[in-house]
Amino acid sequence: MQTVAIVGVGLIGASFGLAIRKSGFSGHILGVSSRPAVEAGLATGAISDAATLEEAVSKADLIYLAQPVDRIMETLGWLGAKARPETLITDAGSTKSAIVSAAAALQYAPFVGGHPMAGKETRGAQSADADLFRNRTYVLTPHLHPVPGNFRRLLDAIGAKVIEMTAEEHDATVALTSHLPQLVSTALAALMAGQNQPGVKDVFGSGLLDMTRLALSPAELWSSILATNKANVIQGLDRYTQVLAELKQALLMDDLDAFFGRAAEFSATLRKPNYKTK
Amino acid sequence: MQTVAIVGVGLIGASFGLAIRKSGFSGHILGVSSRPAVEAGLATGAISDAATLEEAVSKADLIYLAQPVDRIMETLGWLGAKARPETLITDAGSTKSAIVSAAAALQYAPFVGGHPMAGKETRGAQSADADLFRNRTYVLTPHLHPVPGNFRRLLDAIGAKVIEMTAEEHDATVALTSHLPQLVSTALAALMAGQNQPGVKDVFGSGLLDMTRLALSPAELWSSILATNKANVIQGLDRYTQVLAELKQALLMDDLDAFFGRAAEFSATLRKPNYKTK
Repeated sequence: MQTVAIVGVGLIGASFGLAIRKSGFSGHILGVSSRPAVEAGLATGAISDAATLEEAVSKADLIYLAQPVDRIMETLGWLGAKARPETLITDAGSTKSAIVSAAAALQYAPFVGGHPMAGKETRGAQSADADLFRNRTYVLTPHLHPVPGNFRRLLDAIGAKVIEMTAEEHDATVALTSHLPQLVSTALAALMAGQNQPGVKDVFGSGLLDMTRLALSPAELWSSILATNKANVIQGLDRYTQVLAELKQALLMDDLDAFFGRAAEFSATLRKPNYKTK
Repeated sequence: MQTVAIVGVGLIGASFGLAIRKSGFSGHILGVSSRPAVEAGLATGAISDAATLEEAVSKADLIYLAQPVDRIMETLGWLGAKARPETLITDAGSTKSAIVSAAAALQYAPFVGGHPMAGKETRGAQSADADLFRNRTYVLTPHLHPVPGNFRRLLDAIGAKVIEMTAEEHDATVALTSHLPQLVSTALAALMAGQNQPGVKDVFGSGLLDMTRLALSPAELWSSILATNKANVIQGLDRYTQVLAELKQALLMDDLDAFFGRAAEFSATLRKPNYKTK
């Protein structure tokens, strides 16, 4: 692999550039993005050259789409008949089924969907980190093509823990582990925002800060994620509402032990070293 | 103030002992607790002497009840006719109305309810911290008696930010800022514990860890808190369920901007330096 093109030089895209450079990749890293993002990417060394998408598609062995979900789908449409069979296209979008469908537009180039379970509270190439993917789960959803060995070795080299599953399995899973927690946090903060209760903004502990951190996320980041996983997310919300109703009954009966026990055991499992992502 | 007795030498009780010592209190600090807790308190310097409740009630100028809510109510019943008018009784329980009612048993001693909004993930005197209360909100619920000046100065000296409100206001507020977030986290973890979905324990990011940290809390810590604030908590759960239903409708309509905007604004407000507790 001689030339990698990163489309969308934000936190994920720039971190991917820094990570492959750190792991020994010595070829060109083209950055296709807005002018400020490209400048930040050049300044941090995440990319070696600015490029247009036309230039990227003619030169790159790997095109890494690190845009928001809706933009990735647009780019795949644009790449359609232009991307060459020698160029692997992959993406880092937060949902996979809609993106895999959009990738059907690629007439010649192979495509492998991807989703690195990595992030930060701060955005942009300025916050990029060469170790962002280290020891984090990185889902791949190979579809028409198996994962090419050189791409897989690149992910291994940057320390990612690769898991393969179908796009449908991925979306059903992240609906529960990522999209539902986001909405649960947003709903909690929205409820409190509507309270006149004196003291709500003063009388709280670190628990409320934990539970409202995700709620800081802007709608612009989430609207296309949720729109492309709506059925799974609605199902998750319905199940969660059901669990809340059961919890309310348990509270009325002073019978919370089993609930708390199951919840604590699951939460502890997430934190076992094997599963640790943070 | 010459002698302080701490009843319940766990994280909060032992931290109170360390904090007043650090702030210059040079009198006796009696510890009334289980043998291992007393030994840990003596080892860390949080208390200067072990004592029985009988000894504490005959010697202390201030009795600081740092037990679980149900145990505080039992201790108040026991103190009933025994506590002298010269001894201020206060507590650090997580709910206040039930405790204030139980404090009616005190025939001679003045009582001021309290709730330090401070904690840690680890429990016990071993985890005690002289700065646990520094810059944290400390709610007082004076009832029949105003807050004595020497107790107020003690709280100021350990860096606590004292807010006075009624027990009812306190309980309505923490139902939203503490008890509801706990149940929201427990319900989320309980839902996931019940999933067969492959990958739920592997494919997640730091958001799920945030949202399930509270769910690690054991039922034994929460059962008496929730039992003594049940009406407020049920009302909070009902309102939250309503907000989730509204959020579901907004998702179906692809109209999440206002929801996310309100939630993000509230969450940012909590994090302004004035409100910062962590």
